[in-house]
Amino acid sequence: MMRLKLYSAAQNSAGERVRIALNLKGLEFEYVPVSKTTSPDYILRNPQALMPTLEVDDVNITQSLAAIEYLEDRFPNPTLLPADPVLKAHSRSFALAVCAELHALTVRRVRKYLLADMKVGEAKVDAWYARWTHVTLSALETRLADRQSETEFCFADFPTLADIALVPQLANARRFKCDLSGFPIMREIEARCAVLPAFVKARPEKQIDYKP
Amino acid sequence: MMRLKLYSAAQNSAGERVRIALNLKGLEFEYVPVSKTTSPDYILRNPQALMPTLEVDDVNITQSLAAIEYLEDRFPNPTLLPADPVLKAHSRSFALAVCAELHALTVRRVRKYLLADMKVGEAKVDAWYARWTHVTLSALETRLADRQSETEFCFADFPTLADIALVPQLANARRFKCDLSGFPIMREIEARCAVLPAFVKARPEKQIDYKP
Repeated sequence: MMRLKLYSAAQNSAGERVRIALNLKGLEFEYVPVSKTTSPDYILRNPQALMPTLEVDDVNITQSLAAIEYLEDRFPNPTLLPADPVLKAHSRSFALAVCAELHALTVRRVRKYLLADMKVGEAKVDAWYARWTHVTLSALETRLADRQSETEFCFADFPTLADIALVPQLANARRFKCDLSGFPIMREIEARCAVLPAFVKARPEKQIDYKP
Repeated sequence: MMRLKLYSAAQNSAGERVRIALNLKGLEFEYVPVSKTTSPDYILRNPQALMPTLEVDDVNITQSLAAIEYLEDRFPNPTLLPADPVLKAHSRSFALAVCAELHALTVRRVRKYLLADMKVGEAKVDAWYARWTHVTLSALETRLADRQSETEFCFADFPTLADIALVPQLANARRFKCDLSGFPIMREIEARCAVLPAFVKARPEKQIDYKP
């Protein structure tokens, strides 16, 4: 039996993606809250000093999407990707857009650099956050509106990588008071995910290190 | 026979990744230079208005890593991922770090927003570029130094997703005069890639739309 440990934090949304994936696959794992990503111990696991890290026996896997693809390779059922190769590509593409063009641009270390090193002021950091959220979510809403067939979730009748990336990011956007009224398809899919135990259990407020 | 078209531009390094992957797999494709990603025609293919887009028959696949995984699914030989599941995860993780934490933060539209909208000045944009390049490449060099066994390329004795992401990004870093002297393992791997026809043919200066 493989031993799975997830190093993450309650409000780390990349970690929440992996928690959702582990839950959807029904895998037992130990959740290890990380208080300081730059501690020498953590850097050994994750040289980027980013969360999450998935420890599998003695191996550390970094980057949430790589960790989820690893789980998909090792525990293929239930799958987190559509069976059709084109829909599978769309699901991966959607998740990559959330992770690279939205999340990576708006995470705390980037906001901190803008504020503390570039000294742009809080108003411009807020505008920065709203800008990349709006630009990326608008394109992704269009992508969903353009689907050949309407599915219950983004690209299948079950949650896939796209939904796993979307849900924590919409929660982030709300925390930063971004206007989501223009994204009805996403919000409908989000509502379907919100009632699934795998998504509920992965929420920040359900983690042992959650602080409101 | 499948018809493959790649919408990209000579100096679009995300597109260069897909060109390398197509070449490594020995696939014929039509290269379509994109002059304006915000044109109504292109937006229909790629709502994010980003390059590249891989057109497969009548379907548009966006996001370079999703396009390469699609090619891997449909044309598994030669593979662009290590066979071992852990090394496969490391290769994907490495590529994701390049794409999300380095490339996505330093692309032209982000630099343009910093300069034109946030008005931070050119010196701070240069510092921004150097900062994320240094932070991410340092972590990735450590990652390579920590490998259990030294392979010819990042995570195998043949080029995989990690190498495909690395090579165009190092070229970008040089174009922006970032100091790469602290990354000997990467530079050695880059030199091995540089002589392979698949990488040579994908270089910006080999494309019909290249302008020095």
